[in-house]
Amino acid sequence: MAAFEPQDSEFETRVRASFARQQVMHTIGASMTRVSPGEVEIALAFREDLTQQHGFLHAGIVSIIADSACGYAAYSLMPADAAVLTVEYKVNFLSPARGDLMIARARVTKPGRTVTVSMCDVLAVQNGEEKIIATMLGTLMSVLEREGLRG
Amino acid sequence: MAAFEPQDSEFETRVRASFARQQVMHTIGASMTRVSPGEVEIALAFREDLTQQHGFLHAGIVSIIADSACGYAAYSLMPADAAVLTVEYKVNFLSPARGDLMIARARVTKPGRTVTVSMCDVLAVQNGEEKIIATMLGTLMSVLEREGLRG
Amino acid sequence: MAAFEPQDSEFETRVRASFARQQVMHTIGASMTRVSPGEVEIALAFREDLTQQHGFLHAGIVSIIADSACGYAAYSLMPADAAVLTVEYKVNFLSPARGDLMIARARVTKPGRTVTVSMCDVLAVQNGEEKIIATMLGTLMSVLEREGLRG
Amino acid sequence: MAAFEPQDSEFETRVRASFARQQVMHTIGASMTRVSPGEVEIALAFREDLTQQHGFLHAGIVSIIADSACGYAAYSLMPADAAVLTVEYKVNFLSPARGDLMIARARVTKPGRTVTVSMCDVLAVQNGEEKIIATMLGTLMSVLEREGLRG
Repeated sequence: MAAFEPQDSEFETRVRASFARQQVMHTIGASMTRVSPGEVEIALAFREDLTQQHGFLHAGIVSIIADSACGYAAYSLMPADAAVLTVEYKVNFLSPARGDLMIARARVTKPGRTVTVSMCDVLAVQNGEEKIIATMLGTLMSVLEREGLRG
Repeated sequence: MAAFEPQDSEFETRVRASFARQQVMHTIGASMTRVSPGEVEIALAFREDLTQQHGFLHAGIVSIIADSACGYAAYSLMPADAAVLTVEYKVNFLSPARGDLMIARARVTKPGRTVTVSMCDVLAVQNGEEKIIATMLGTLMSVLEREGLRG
Repeated sequence: MAAFEPQDSEFETRVRASFARQQVMHTIGASMTRVSPGEVEIALAFREDLTQQHGFLHAGIVSIIADSACGYAAYSLMPADAAVLTVEYKVNFLSPARGDLMIARARVTKPGRTVTVSMCDVLAVQNGEEKIIATMLGTLMSVLEREGLRG
Repeated sequence: MAAFEPQDSEFETRVRASFARQQVMHTIGASMTRVSPGEVEIALAFREDLTQQHGFLHAGIVSIIADSACGYAAYSLMPADAAVLTVEYKVNFLSPARGDLMIARARVTKPGRTVTVSMCDVLAVQNGEEKIIATMLGTLMSVLEREGLRG
């Protein structure tokens, strides 16, 4: 796959600053572990208080890190004055979300001036082994100077 | 639309007990406000600590309540010894998730022995007015006595 | 649900003219049976030469009429100089597509200047009885004067 | 990525025989160009009679070959007495479907006893160059001896 060329050389600073403003990430304890043009990785340690009825991480929590990874992968390729909005996503849950750590690895499939498509695999790490637990396909939109949005 | 007939007359007790075991719901402050055969409603008050970078509720948080509403709508029609798993869902975000209260209203589209399809609209309530902010279409699976799952 | 107000009073003529240019509809024998603001219905008679390996209509054929119904429901609310493109869709297949006639009934969930979301149920009619066989949730985009697109 | 191990050594014969029974493939002129464990490729030459209003291949036609590629990729890993059904799929359209030839390349993401998840990229080939035009994420189900289904 070809590497992507960022439009804004300060993309990493911009992506990390926007991520830092996502209060929900502080609430659940997620961190951005990698940013490169068109690719973002977000990690989340397992926590009991984020589980569903069977003791696995709730599917929606898995979606939070996958959605943000998809969105920031898209955002990394956008111009400096753009904001990114999630139009929609679809996620398949492949295995229960158990393990010590969840890693959401997103990559842009097709960048676009208005619409960008990203994919994300979520891996559960347990005893040093990675297992794919979810895969997301999402649509992001670039919005310019709307309603005072930034990031 | 035809009403659904539950297989288990104790469906409401079973659904509410399972929901009570979802620790993430306590963490975010969501509550189950309605259960009827094939229909479930979950409410969530706006909270700053669940927001994304623009100050709206994070899309993944919206997905948590929509996913659980879809899952429990399906679960309400399952036999007493079944567990429900989310196979996948797709969600469109129609408007920013701002407002005092979010209400996820799910309904089963098609119940099945193994696979059930549910839909959910998420409404934002502000100053007493409801506005649709997201719509989900999801696939749930009924699993019997697997790995000690219940609910 | 509130009725939609078309921006272009000639919306029906515009929708039907565009549909008439879809050569695939002639090929499979589909016809547009209803157009109103934000709502479109497309019908398709069962044909052996459109089936999959079990003798039912192929899922992709069901998708063709559902996708076009979603797209034209969105297009009916767009300005006269717009073209409509399908960004993505997700479709659940609820029952095998058998029956004398398939009817795709689409309705706009949320119209937008750039992005419109539509839903579509596909019903199979057999011996005068309707049964839902598929449901689609799709995202359409309005494009103005791009690459000589019309309709 | 690890290679998949087929349960049935005659998987290719079984997959090709089932594909040959899909009458819609003859109707649109699609052919299966590759079968290996968990991977299937289907090719379709451009034809005017399969186009939408702008002269590109209709999105639903693209879905037909992508859906069948996903389904047969899953089917190649199923036991000899299984039938495969499409539960749902989601497809993003990345570029207009124009070109001399469309190639749908599907691969299983996660095989399962009941539920299998597959992905498919659709490439348009023009003047010897490949361009991705669509990407699908789908859910397939294995059904045993139901309603006389085979393949």
